[in-house]
Amino acid sequence: MGVMRMGYAHVRVTDLAEAKAHYANTMGLYETHAEDGRVYYKGWDEWDHHSVVLEEGGVGVVKFGWKVRYSSDLDEIERRAQAFGVTVERMSRGENPEIGDGIRFTTPSEHVFEVYHEATLIGTEVGTHNPDAFPRHLVGVGVPGLDHALITAEDVKGMERFLTEVFDFYATERVQTSLEDDADYIGTWMTSNNQIHQLAVIGGPQGKLHHFAFKLGDWSEVGHAADLFSMDDVPIDVGPTRHGITRGQTVYFFDPSGNRNEVFAGGYLAYPDRPVHVWTPEQLGKGIFYHARELNDRFTTVLT
Amino acid sequence: MGVMRMGYAHVRVTDLAEAKAHYANTMGLYETHAEDGRVYYKGWDEWDHHSVVLEEGGVGVVKFGWKVRYSSDLDEIERRAQAFGVTVERMSRGENPEIGDGIRFTTPSEHVFEVYHEATLIGTEVGTHNPDAFPRHLVGVGVPGLDHALITAEDVKGMERFLTEVFDFYATERVQTSLEDDADYIGTWMTSNNQIHQLAVIGGPQGKLHHFAFKLGDWSEVGHAADLFSMDDVPIDVGPTRHGITRGQTVYFFDPSGNRNEVFAGGYLAYPDRPVHVWTPEQLGKGIFYHARELNDRFTTVLT
Amino acid sequence: MGVMRMGYAHVRVTDLAEAKAHYANTMGLYETHAEDGRVYYKGWDEWDHHSVVLEEGGVGVVKFGWKVRYSSDLDEIERRAQAFGVTVERMSRGENPEIGDGIRFTTPSEHVFEVYHEATLIGTEVGTHNPDAFPRHLVGVGVPGLDHALITAEDVKGMERFLTEVFDFYATERVQTSLEDDADYIGTWMTSNNQIHQLAVIGGPQGKLHHFAFKLGDWSEVGHAADLFSMDDVPIDVGPTRHGITRGQTVYFFDPSGNRNEVFAGGYLAYPDRPVHVWTPEQLGKGIFYHARELNDRFTTVLT
Amino acid sequence: MGVMRMGYAHVRVTDLAEAKAHYANTMGLYETHAEDGRVYYKGWDEWDHHSVVLEEGGVGVVKFGWKVRYSSDLDEIERRAQAFGVTVERMSRGENPEIGDGIRFTTPSEHVFEVYHEATLIGTEVGTHNPDAFPRHLVGVGVPGLDHALITAEDVKGMERFLTEVFDFYATERVQTSLEDDADYIGTWMTSNNQIHQLAVIGGPQGKLHHFAFKLGDWSEVGHAADLFSMDDVPIDVGPTRHGITRGQTVYFFDPSGNRNEVFAGGYLAYPDRPVHVWTPEQLGKGIFYHARELNDRFTTVLT
Repeated sequence: MGVMRMGYAHVRVTDLAEAKAHYANTMGLYETHAEDGRVYYKGWDEWDHHSVVLEEGGVGVVKFGWKVRYSSDLDEIERRAQAFGVTVERMSRGENPEIGDGIRFTTPSEHVFEVYHEATLIGTEVGTHNPDAFPRHLVGVGVPGLDHALITAEDVKGMERFLTEVFDFYATERVQTSLEDDADYIGTWMTSNNQIHQLAVIGGPQGKLHHFAFKLGDWSEVGHAADLFSMDDVPIDVGPTRHGITRGQTVYFFDPSGNRNEVFAGGYLAYPDRPVHVWTPEQLGKGIFYHARELNDRFTTVLT
Repeated sequence: MGVMRMGYAHVRVTDLAEAKAHYANTMGLYETHAEDGRVYYKGWDEWDHHSVVLEEGGVGVVKFGWKVRYSSDLDEIERRAQAFGVTVERMSRGENPEIGDGIRFTTPSEHVFEVYHEATLIGTEVGTHNPDAFPRHLVGVGVPGLDHALITAEDVKGMERFLTEVFDFYATERVQTSLEDDADYIGTWMTSNNQIHQLAVIGGPQGKLHHFAFKLGDWSEVGHAADLFSMDDVPIDVGPTRHGITRGQTVYFFDPSGNRNEVFAGGYLAYPDRPVHVWTPEQLGKGIFYHARELNDRFTTVLT
Repeated sequence: MGVMRMGYAHVRVTDLAEAKAHYANTMGLYETHAEDGRVYYKGWDEWDHHSVVLEEGGVGVVKFGWKVRYSSDLDEIERRAQAFGVTVERMSRGENPEIGDGIRFTTPSEHVFEVYHEATLIGTEVGTHNPDAFPRHLVGVGVPGLDHALITAEDVKGMERFLTEVFDFYATERVQTSLEDDADYIGTWMTSNNQIHQLAVIGGPQGKLHHFAFKLGDWSEVGHAADLFSMDDVPIDVGPTRHGITRGQTVYFFDPSGNRNEVFAGGYLAYPDRPVHVWTPEQLGKGIFYHARELNDRFTTVLT
Repeated sequence: MGVMRMGYAHVRVTDLAEAKAHYANTMGLYETHAEDGRVYYKGWDEWDHHSVVLEEGGVGVVKFGWKVRYSSDLDEIERRAQAFGVTVERMSRGENPEIGDGIRFTTPSEHVFEVYHEATLIGTEVGTHNPDAFPRHLVGVGVPGLDHALITAEDVKGMERFLTEVFDFYATERVQTSLEDDADYIGTWMTSNNQIHQLAVIGGPQGKLHHFAFKLGDWSEVGHAADLFSMDDVPIDVGPTRHGITRGQTVYFFDPSGNRNEVFAGGYLAYPDRPVHVWTPEQLGKGIFYHARELNDRFTTVLT
């Protein structure tokens, strides 16, 4: 049962034309739909109708969509969210284009989550019959799909409990004030499956977005993406480098509106029987940026 | 619920000393135990006591172990296997060193499967507290862990049904005689989670092993492994190359007893809502070896 | 003084339209000129007017061009070639489009060499002022330039002497029948500078081409090229793999006319004070294909 | 004729034991000799007796050695240096262990250069007879050899002229105050052959070392080196990243004494007929660090 993946990240951008140039021409997302000042995108290896939604006006995240394996998961998650004390509303087919019925609620961290079971499968260029390994003519970075997001919350430990109890997520890595049982949580990296993280939460203001990330295949693709960001004047925040946390290989950068994006490769397969990696403050720099081993101010303060 | 991963591959080798040199010095597995003519190994990124067991005498697979998330999964899988018509026996803690209670049965393909919920966590060199990205002094290829296996069966379609009904596996890729609904299955690649395959089955004699595979991080590591195989006189079967099926990057090679091994990197994240990739005979060569686009005799005939 | 590099490979193709699709769309060469049934190409990182010439009618090599550093080198090479017993003719500016005066002679291996000092610099997309690391919109494999060629000769030792005495080339690697001083040469890899080889010669019929090669940056690009060859139905001869000889990473493949091409990355910097690597027959397979460690018939018999 | 390569970098270190741990255990250099408080090293792919010399006491560069192809080059370079107005002294065999006769002079930038033709060839682990692609058991980063250095000078343009007139070097890339003919030079990257640079000079105090660099094979090796630097607590200055200038892929880091080192991969083949890449101040950040596109203070101020 349960959440299969983050199905979409719906974010605000200050200028839709600039944003489209970034997400289509540099990132190589495929535009699948546009209406009412919103543009819908998917990566080349995604089957569902969209995984990224841009909406003009401001910055930051509007909501995240989560796709569940069974329609019965919707009821179960509704029940659990209500048991946690969260108000849940029903979402109807079509409130999001090509997305089925579902539920919607605001998390304790003040982020809007939508949970759904159905999305129109619009397929990929390579298809399913003797498919090529990737489309022959990718654009720019050519990301295959959405990977994960990092959000901020005032109560990280509470959000870990929420995601555990409502979504059956488990932590793969965590930053704690110490190794003691009563330690505070500075950050938590969580998943429901083998993906090293689907959603991470770090301490900060309610309702904010630190970044959302696209998958890449390996370190060579990460380096190549960084080269293209220079050519396209995309501001790089940090990288290419490796994370200690998740071991992922990464570039952080900003879209033209100032929303932080990431390209992310590597990491290891998560399993629920694997002990949580715990990072403590004296090595937090190394946990976040394995090579530089120190945080920069921008990384910790720029949120949208 | 369900199967988390292939926990161990237990295989026969003709000469234990030669085999140990291969699995320890070339592959870089860690020996964790030895008794009664059996040697137990794990990869550097595996927490459980062992993932590979070598047993002197002959070649081929003795059995595969499958680790489940919850102890209640054992009962459920037992019930399902019996419903499928398979005889299930109970396995006691200690029948395999450091492995808990479980069940054992012979699949319709005549392979022995053991299913268990508990294994002694013996940990890794990097540990869980501010862990480094990998151990500083890896040996040889330095594989992080076991990945999957490919076995042969007279009735591939039957085995897909068995793995679906008993293990809740789903097919990610398949080779069929055609795209018709009543097509025969030549091979099926199956998983329970996001790993692109945990077990694949191709048509062939009952009870045989085509290969078992170790994970690697990326194409550079695959190339480096191939270089080390040459230095260590490990016979390479095919590769480095890419598979069309799974998109994985690979080298096939033989252990000193003639069991085929693989190092495998890449592939894409599997999801149960993603349509199955279906390969048909006219492109089977490309499906198996994406670059050469043709099978070699050895690949299709050498089994252990 | 001396030869800076192989400036161009001029080859015959059976069908110019098919060839253009291969060299332009798959290899990503830039067409710079066409006249009289000939098409001229350069790679994205080459400044001279062309490095590949295709001429309709047959297969195989018409001639190789060699660019020298100083115009006085033309006289010196003419003198040396004549001293070696080779007839040299003067070549006038314009006999090859955008190529200056030079000399022309037939080598003892019956290949036509042209030597010149001037070529029109037509530049590159990235230019010289704050240049980007590569053009933003490369096509297909996007090769930066021509790298080297391998030709056949009845007398390999004689050709090594010729290239040494006339071109000041030195051998970096050699295949010999033994390590004895009087060993015969099966192949020789030669250069004038730090490139691991500019021209290699193996035993075989006079005047034939084994392959000509394009540069690539690294093993990831070699793997990516192999993927594109599958998508574009380019027949792969061997690879991706590594050579023992030169340590280069490689894919051999055929153009639509059956001329063998290579993409080549890596290798080490050659220096004239470095001892020659000598390969002997018992390890020749490993020398040519470091992973498979055996030659295939096609590799040794298909020449154009 | 001429300079083949930077043969050795002889530097001071404050603590020889710490330095040995860095250069031997982390960088993987082979110690070939030790005497009089000096330790001599070579990389695995270097044939000459040493390429790095450590001398206890202070920091910075003692001298650079340059190996020439012909012994007659010594006379020619002596003549040219004297013509430039530099005092040249003769250096005797044995003044540097296993290095032949030569000349010594102080450059206009106040760096000591030694030029020599002979060094004892002590060979490599893989040897020359059917050699493996690299030694089977490399230590740490396992650098194949010394690559280049960057020094500072008050008069960059004067040093470019000196290296041109005395060493027959040519500039491959340059940073100028403008594109005008009378522009000042902020930095120049120079070579005598196909290596993208053997010595670079940037404006700064006389006689100082910015860094000396070791070769690596590709971007994957650069990333792996950065990982090892974190494990070994080697302070990273910048990287992994790419340079716009030279296109090389890089990590800058510090030895325990504070001398800056680099690992450097990629770059393109230099040719004297290729136009110089010219960078101007508005893009200097991108020229130095292609991804971050800005210099950090440490990079421009920390010299030894």
